[in-house]
Amino acid sequence: LLTFLPCFLQGILERLDAGEIVIGDGGFVIALEKRGYVKAGPWTPEATVEHPEAVRQLHREFLRAGSNVLQTFTFYASEDKLENRGNYVAEKISCQKLNEAACDIAREVANEGDALVAGGVSQTPSYLSCKDKAEVKAAFRKQLEVFTKKNVDFLIAEYFEHVEEAVWAVEVLKESGKPVAATMCIGPEGDMHGVSPGQCAVQLVKAGASIVGVNCHFDPDISLETVKLMKEGLQAAKLKAHLMSQPLAFHTPDCGKQGFIDLPEFPFGLEPRIATRWDIQKYARKAYDLGVRYIGGCCGFEPYHIRAIAEELAPERGFLPEASDKHGSWGNSLSMHTKPWVRARARKEYWLNLKPASGRPYCPSMSKPDGWGVTKGAKELMQQKEPTSEQQLKELFQKQKE
Amino acid sequence: LLTFLPCFLQGILERLDAGEIVIGDGGFVIALEKRGYVKAGPWTPEATVEHPEAVRQLHREFLRAGSNVLQTFTFYASEDKLENRGNYVAEKISCQKLNEAACDIAREVANEGDALVAGGVSQTPSYLSCKDKAEVKAAFRKQLEVFTKKNVDFLIAEYFEHVEEAVWAVEVLKESGKPVAATMCIGPEGDMHGVSPGQCAVQLVKAGASIVGVNCHFDPDISLETVKLMKEGLQAAKLKAHLMSQPLAFHTPDCGKQGFIDLPEFPFGLEPRIATRWDIQKYARKAYDLGVRYIGGCCGFEPYHIRAIAEELAPERGFLPEASDKHGSWGNSLSMHTKPWVRARARKEYWLNLKPASGRPYCPSMSKPDGWGVTKGAKELMQQKEPTSEQQLKELFQKQKE
Amino acid sequence: LLTFLPCFLQGILERLDAGEIVIGDGGFVIALEKRGYVKAGPWTPEATVEHPEAVRQLHREFLRAGSNVLQTFTFYASEDKLENRGNYVAEKISCQKLNEAACDIAREVANEGDALVAGGVSQTPSYLSCKDKAEVKAAFRKQLEVFTKKNVDFLIAEYFEHVEEAVWAVEVLKESGKPVAATMCIGPEGDMHGVSPGQCAVQLVKAGASIVGVNCHFDPDISLETVKLMKEGLQAAKLKAHLMSQPLAFHTPDCGKQGFIDLPEFPFGLEPRIATRWDIQKYARKAYDLGVRYIGGCCGFEPYHIRAIAEELAPERGFLPEASDKHGSWGNSLSMHTKPWVRARARKEYWLNLKPASGRPYCPSMSKPDGWGVTKGAKELMQQKEPTSEQQLKELFQKQKE
Amino acid sequence: LLTFLPCFLQGILERLDAGEIVIGDGGFVIALEKRGYVKAGPWTPEATVEHPEAVRQLHREFLRAGSNVLQTFTFYASEDKLENRGNYVAEKISCQKLNEAACDIAREVANEGDALVAGGVSQTPSYLSCKDKAEVKAAFRKQLEVFTKKNVDFLIAEYFEHVEEAVWAVEVLKESGKPVAATMCIGPEGDMHGVSPGQCAVQLVKAGASIVGVNCHFDPDISLETVKLMKEGLQAAKLKAHLMSQPLAFHTPDCGKQGFIDLPEFPFGLEPRIATRWDIQKYARKAYDLGVRYIGGCCGFEPYHIRAIAEELAPERGFLPEASDKHGSWGNSLSMHTKPWVRARARKEYWLNLKPASGRPYCPSMSKPDGWGVTKGAKELMQQKEPTSEQQLKELFQKQKE
Repeated sequence: LLTFLPCFLQGILERLDAGEIVIGDGGFVIALEKRGYVKAGPWTPEATVEHPEAVRQLHREFLRAGSNVLQTFTFYASEDKLENRGNYVAEKISCQKLNEAACDIAREVANEGDALVAGGVSQTPSYLSCKDKAEVKAAFRKQLEVFTKKNVDFLIAEYFEHVEEAVWAVEVLKESGKPVAATMCIGPEGDMHGVSPGQCAVQLVKAGASIVGVNCHFDPDISLETVKLMKEGLQAAKLKAHLMSQPLAFHTPDCGKQGFIDLPEFPFGLEPRIATRWDIQKYARKAYDLGVRYIGGCCGFEPYHIRAIAEELAPERGFLPEASDKHGSWGNSLSMHTKPWVRARARKEYWLNLKPASGRPYCPSMSKPDGWGVTKGAKELMQQKEPTSEQQLKELFQKQKE
Repeated sequence: LLTFLPCFLQGILERLDAGEIVIGDGGFVIALEKRGYVKAGPWTPEATVEHPEAVRQLHREFLRAGSNVLQTFTFYASEDKLENRGNYVAEKISCQKLNEAACDIAREVANEGDALVAGGVSQTPSYLSCKDKAEVKAAFRKQLEVFTKKNVDFLIAEYFEHVEEAVWAVEVLKESGKPVAATMCIGPEGDMHGVSPGQCAVQLVKAGASIVGVNCHFDPDISLETVKLMKEGLQAAKLKAHLMSQPLAFHTPDCGKQGFIDLPEFPFGLEPRIATRWDIQKYARKAYDLGVRYIGGCCGFEPYHIRAIAEELAPERGFLPEASDKHGSWGNSLSMHTKPWVRARARKEYWLNLKPASGRPYCPSMSKPDGWGVTKGAKELMQQKEPTSEQQLKELFQKQKE
Repeated sequence: LLTFLPCFLQGILERLDAGEIVIGDGGFVIALEKRGYVKAGPWTPEATVEHPEAVRQLHREFLRAGSNVLQTFTFYASEDKLENRGNYVAEKISCQKLNEAACDIAREVANEGDALVAGGVSQTPSYLSCKDKAEVKAAFRKQLEVFTKKNVDFLIAEYFEHVEEAVWAVEVLKESGKPVAATMCIGPEGDMHGVSPGQCAVQLVKAGASIVGVNCHFDPDISLETVKLMKEGLQAAKLKAHLMSQPLAFHTPDCGKQGFIDLPEFPFGLEPRIATRWDIQKYARKAYDLGVRYIGGCCGFEPYHIRAIAEELAPERGFLPEASDKHGSWGNSLSMHTKPWVRARARKEYWLNLKPASGRPYCPSMSKPDGWGVTKGAKELMQQKEPTSEQQLKELFQKQKE
Repeated sequence: LLTFLPCFLQGILERLDAGEIVIGDGGFVIALEKRGYVKAGPWTPEATVEHPEAVRQLHREFLRAGSNVLQTFTFYASEDKLENRGNYVAEKISCQKLNEAACDIAREVANEGDALVAGGVSQTPSYLSCKDKAEVKAAFRKQLEVFTKKNVDFLIAEYFEHVEEAVWAVEVLKESGKPVAATMCIGPEGDMHGVSPGQCAVQLVKAGASIVGVNCHFDPDISLETVKLMKEGLQAAKLKAHLMSQPLAFHTPDCGKQGFIDLPEFPFGLEPRIATRWDIQKYARKAYDLGVRYIGGCCGFEPYHIRAIAEELAPERGFLPEASDKHGSWGNSLSMHTKPWVRARARKEYWLNLKPASGRPYCPSMSKPDGWGVTKGAKELMQQKEPTSEQQLKELFQKQKE
């Protein structure tokens, strides 16, 4: 395989229509939190203005790892969200300025490698606080104005828990005339109002999305299960769309309906759940076999995880990403090691079969998700729930009342 | 607590002598491997020349996280090592150029925050291939020339498995007249020739090291156990020196004498072993209580782990690092979350007591280290050893013979 | 609560119709294998003739623990099975003699405490080798003749994987005029021909069973999930029957459709999966809440597990079993311990919340079931399957061909 | 191999002196607690009088499994212990009557197979409450009178935590003129007064014990480590004695100095720690290789565990136990199974390498022992201790004060 960056002269739909594999990028908020530029809790992207060099560097690493699309770092960057959560930023940064900076940085790096730039919008506090359709749409439109001005290549509506809000987002983004992708942060049980993944996909395509799928909240296995249900829903409705997946790089077999937010480890104790590069190679293969052609990641995906997608699908694509200059496929860079038992690890079978230990004998392998009090299956969960935690929550609620 | 960067006008020894806590930085090769700039196996630092922006950014993140010392990225940068492993670098980079670039980058970033710059040397292939003292010392001297020319603030001899080689390194570094720190990558069983940690410390101090301790190869608990033995050795010998620890940010309770290299997960499946920020806060406190005042990290330490040291010891030091602007102490940034059970995580007791799940029910919590064939306790390990793995190794050896 | 054995003058249906809780007994083949009287593999009950004292003692322990029903130890005691598997028994024991001895022992012990005796039949090799209905029914009828002669109190058709065979068994047993219970060893996915649990229950009741449910193959949680589906199936069909559950006392969250037989640990490595008494108290409560009134156990259930059912439901029943003389409820017998931290365990909250450690840090918490080659979801499982095991099986098949 | 019971006409020392392997029996209190005849907490053996048939049956199962020695069920049967703990027994049973019944039952069953009968004494409450040597010795002497009257074949002083008390017991037992074995329930750290295993062995042999070793409190691996230290102590003192081991059949890698009593799972949640038969075969081999020739078990050892010892050492001994009629060596009884993947388990490599899963993904693999408040390493443990548990204990202590 030759290692080079192919030239992308075409848009996202031309490429997908031609059967190409498009590799997305990874998760910005989690990666930049660890690097010291994003605050967990608010999760807002003021770093685009405060520390553009850090955002630029992360974009660059994803590009080198094989990303064909750089998403503007505009997660939770709607005006209502910034007002709601942005109080801790010493000097308030306007919504417009923040979104513009995100576009500029993404484009600058994309040009280093001919990647596409996608402008992204996500769920809004306005929707959650039951504001009306007009208000919610106005928030999306404000961001879209920036994306249009900065001429991003296409648009992504992502991280929606309610298909209704996602549809509104798609409708606004379609006003631009640019291609629109839409992903929901749901699992096989569907959206928070009980709409099934198949129905979500159908509604999104009918609203104008050309690419649909899932992002965030669940691990690769569960996410692909959800995408499969979307695919079946579209087939049943005789609709056509490209499929997209951008899951977590955390193992979450124990998640409830609302995903990893409810796991006790979220967000500061997720380390033992982090996927290895080999886990991601398995994901990439499984996604490809399912017919997904826009394959990326969300929270937890670091540049080397994206590289793993690019390496797994290199036979199909015919090339390796630039960062593979610093990576031997399937561990083969260990073949020169001085110790024979380390050299023995320089092969595919070894890493494919490794069951990596946690080094944590006092920890379990799965957790019960919190949040039993409000989800659909509340009663059932309550019965399974540890009394201790229940007690803790009760005490908390008690304190809140006082 | 005020969040600010204190002004450091004094040298490393002045500060330690005054009882200050000095926070080191984290591991470059593992972090930059994941970012796409270092190749596992060779682990050489040609990125200083090839991609200075990536090295600069990582230095900057550590600085923001609270590091008071930036080590030049000169790990495995001795001439013999570069020749031995550097064949894959398209255009050969000279040892001198690489070391100079590393010094320049570290100084540039250190000046952004008044941190100290430490020039570092590590074990050489010349020693392992039984070259004589003169040859090994020549390799160190070549790097030292660059450090002298670039006027680093002090010097670190690190990652030595044999105290004999470490002593040679200290002797060379002392020629510069600058303060010298020396750390060995050993556990409580001592160096590869069977010299105990206490004896190692004594020999290093006698050779001229002002600061001694351990780095890499073992997790914080095991490393501090080793530092404790060093401390006791020095006390018994009535010698004085400052103590230093820069352990792994991986849990390795199952390591054998040669540390994490021999774990089956090294280096591409270590994810489930990654320490949380809370694990590192416990480490910082334990190190402090033991009397260690130079507290940093090695492989696996990302910027947020260094921040955890700085936050844990903020009461003693009186200030927080810059990156704490983006981090609520003990998770308190979650106190505004919309979900009550996530808000319930905004407190010290929660994170201190969390036993994080791996999400990997098909994986064990500990592994048997490889390499039983050559270590001291070989026979015993062989009896414990899985027949399967033994078989795999036998087959490998067989193949190598053919 | 008073500790005494209540007097049971009534039959099984009178009691269930009156709303009483009936406690079954535990698993004989696994318990007696460990005691040295049953051979794993054949699993035949020749011990009734060879070592009646051992069978008698186990019956007695279950009786003391609270069992209201003693099942004759006639598992796999059909003539075709005994011929098929019984070759290793030095002096062949006739089917009739074996079944008669089983009835005599059960009745003898039942009279020590006024328990009921249930004659039991289970799946036959004749059905598996596609013999016709007449032949299979003849096998059941031969056992029924003994049960009739020995005048057991009622009959149980248990451990059926195919509802068709279970229906045949019920039809034969009904010829006796005695009440018939029928349990299948299936999970929520239904029988081996794909008949759902709800449909199985409907067919069994239509065939004449007054009590239906599940036994063996799955853990309490999964078994109750299956019973729930049966209950719903009966409700939908407007049929009435009493519900019964006799699950494993092994944790099997990782089972495939065919249950614990396919787990790699079956049958000689199941120890870490053994349920605690507290797990069984949770099961008893959950079964009761679901409306199950015939609550017992199968493989893995030792006398103390049956006692746990009796203790959990003592408030509803108004009495404790005899063996509770030797057991403090919820660990209260520890309240006199010399060590305060052991005394601290003498309370319900402690045991209810304990997450017991395995002491096996090199072992995983879940396994992939074998047998992927033949189950419905074969293809999917094959993808998940470890190459090593696949390899092992391939080699095995290869050898068998040779 | 022929399956038969060899004729034992000789005493314990004749046999050991001749180099024979002597197989002990398993643990009575834990086994009979599960069967419903012993109460956890008091752990007294009144079942010898109340339910002799249950005690007889357990003896018989051990005999069939290969035990060459049947210990009288006289654990905790000293008069002071019975008075102290026996209040719950409705009609008080005298110490003499209980010990006599134990001797009679053991002899009756021993005669079924020519096994030896050993009278056993264990630690007394008198010693713990600081009564003087004369009083403690009087308690042992009272039991010895029964053993002499009933003419047991030899004597065992077992389950001592303080070598001083064990020495007193040996001195009393030696008065009978019969051979004496002595085992302590200690680990490698030695007895509760800090006497090392080597020193314990020396003192016991000097007091008159012909056989020394360990029983209970720790798993096979840790126990054999302790026996090894005893062996080395004896060698250094140029003393000769036979070695004996009767460990737990529970995995306890996480035990502190006082063994499994302090594990949070003791005594009602130990199930996931239960050893498989293969674990015990490994133990038997390891014990044999260490030179131990009296090989048995303690708490957790069921008859099938004893059979595993007998099967592992069958090549050395030349015969299999009677119960092996119902057990295929290394799982070979599965070779006729209908499913090929179950047949694939009918071989040594399979079971030797199996890493059995717990089926408990919400549980850890190791626990922190309780009891940090009083052990030698208290301070260290306190630091590791979960705040929650610490809190629980504090509350307990608080309540006790009130």
